[in-house]
Amino acid sequence: MAGTDRSQDSSRTPGDPFAPVVILVRPQLGQNIGAAARAMLNCGLYELRLVQPRDGWPNPKARILASGAESVLDDTRVYPSVAEATGDLHRIFATTARRRDLAKPVVTPEEAAREIRGLAGAHGARCGLLFGPERTGLHSPEVAAADAILHIPLNPAYASLNLGQAVLLVAYCWWDQASATPNQYVHEHPFNDYVNDTGDGPARREAVDALLTHLERELTAARFWKSEAKRPVLWRSLVTYLLRGAPRESEVSLLHGVVTALSGRRADGRLRGAPRPKGK
Amino acid sequence: MAGTDRSQDSSRTPGDPFAPVVILVRPQLGQNIGAAARAMLNCGLYELRLVQPRDGWPNPKARILASGAESVLDDTRVYPSVAEATGDLHRIFATTARRRDLAKPVVTPEEAAREIRGLAGAHGARCGLLFGPERTGLHSPEVAAADAILHIPLNPAYASLNLGQAVLLVAYCWWDQASATPNQYVHEHPFNDYVNDTGDGPARREAVDALLTHLERELTAARFWKSEAKRPVLWRSLVTYLLRGAPRESEVSLLHGVVTALSGRRADGRLRGAPRPKGK
Repeated sequence: MAGTDRSQDSSRTPGDPFAPVVILVRPQLGQNIGAAARAMLNCGLYELRLVQPRDGWPNPKARILASGAESVLDDTRVYPSVAEATGDLHRIFATTARRRDLAKPVVTPEEAAREIRGLAGAHGARCGLLFGPERTGLHSPEVAAADAILHIPLNPAYASLNLGQAVLLVAYCWWDQASATPNQYVHEHPFNDYVNDTGDGPARREAVDALLTHLERELTAARFWKSEAKRPVLWRSLVTYLLRGAPRESEVSLLHGVVTALSGRRADGRLRGAPRPKGK
Repeated sequence: MAGTDRSQDSSRTPGDPFAPVVILVRPQLGQNIGAAARAMLNCGLYELRLVQPRDGWPNPKARILASGAESVLDDTRVYPSVAEATGDLHRIFATTARRRDLAKPVVTPEEAAREIRGLAGAHGARCGLLFGPERTGLHSPEVAAADAILHIPLNPAYASLNLGQAVLLVAYCWWDQASATPNQYVHEHPFNDYVNDTGDGPARREAVDALLTHLERELTAARFWKSEAKRPVLWRSLVTYLLRGAPRESEVSLLHGVVTALSGRRADGRLRGAPRPKGK
């Protein structure tokens, strides 16, 4: 359907600085990247990131399909990992079609949109929307590392969506709430439902990742893992619990302090206790 | 994204008898008819009607694109005019991308969905959703003959949607209003609506308290509190964060293990490291 108002130059349209970032993880087909870019621009999303696109980047097939939405592709950046693609963001939604056995919040596109707008309004936070490869979807560890699962509730007898359509539905739900969102919705938001000592906002993802790295290192040093075979499961459970609490900036600092203190180092890096046991 | 539950036979799924009918007027490309059929089935719509399809009917290209949604195409009927295609319906929404100078109600997909469900519930009425040809959209007389204009509010700087996407957005808005899916599983029903790695439930409060006591004791032993004056504030922040994640039984055990390991004791209670520094 032709419907663009050509008097408006889309490349100059100022995007909402708190609009969510779309992150395509290992996308296979350039056509789908182009379709995702179109769906984004339809709904006022401008920032697309790619993690390990199968056919490299830039991809001419993406440009063909993006007709009119090339501005999104021009600004697209490529990252080597999900962690690097999401480091500066505050809350990550992993889009999944299948059920995943993870103790993690599962939200609809509408609820995700409310959370994204709530976080932006209350804390100036930016969120990320992760979409997996066409054939397989996201790997479980990638879903586990996200803050919440975004599930599009479709006809269970026929839930197959292509990548461009999935991006379109999620983006549309965000766009649609621009004017219709009641003012009081922020009070329903989980981040606003409790009193915070410091009034600060959710931590950036890279800060959370640094905390997890710190904790994992100290657990390894403390020989916490019963075996290498059990380690991934234990770690995933722990990460799932820690992310569920959606730590704020001040809490991440506090937790660094806890890990540092318990593991016997002072904040200045000097060892508090005695040498590690043999084998360390 | 693969997500269909193959245990459910979509061809036998009983549709909502008051679901709206999708009517494609003079569709040009078979591929788009197939894409529309998929989008319909995604969202629980089963009845597709065609008015003067350019390439005749049936159309093999539609079947290729409809993969999995052939049941919709099998039941598709062809009509010579919009009037004949809509004669048995009660209210007709004409989807348009461009503004039309017609003194006619203009509704969003959400409002159309509410009206369609309201008419079905109150009067057993069935509605029709008209979509025009890809290139030009509906003729003005066709729009004028409809009861209301359905306008999808997209980014005015880039409002171009293909036919399949337009059907998807409108159908999803209808489907979504019946969906039994709560917007957010975890926060509204913290312990019942999502699956957990271990299948266990929330920890009893006394177990959580024991964990907190364990942690507080080890933090004190590690001289974590900067001062007694700051201690209550730090501890309250930490407890707030830890409780927010609503730990389960298995997670409480895991966290005991983490505290024990980091603080230098094995699970059997023996000291792993060396004596505490002076003053402990």
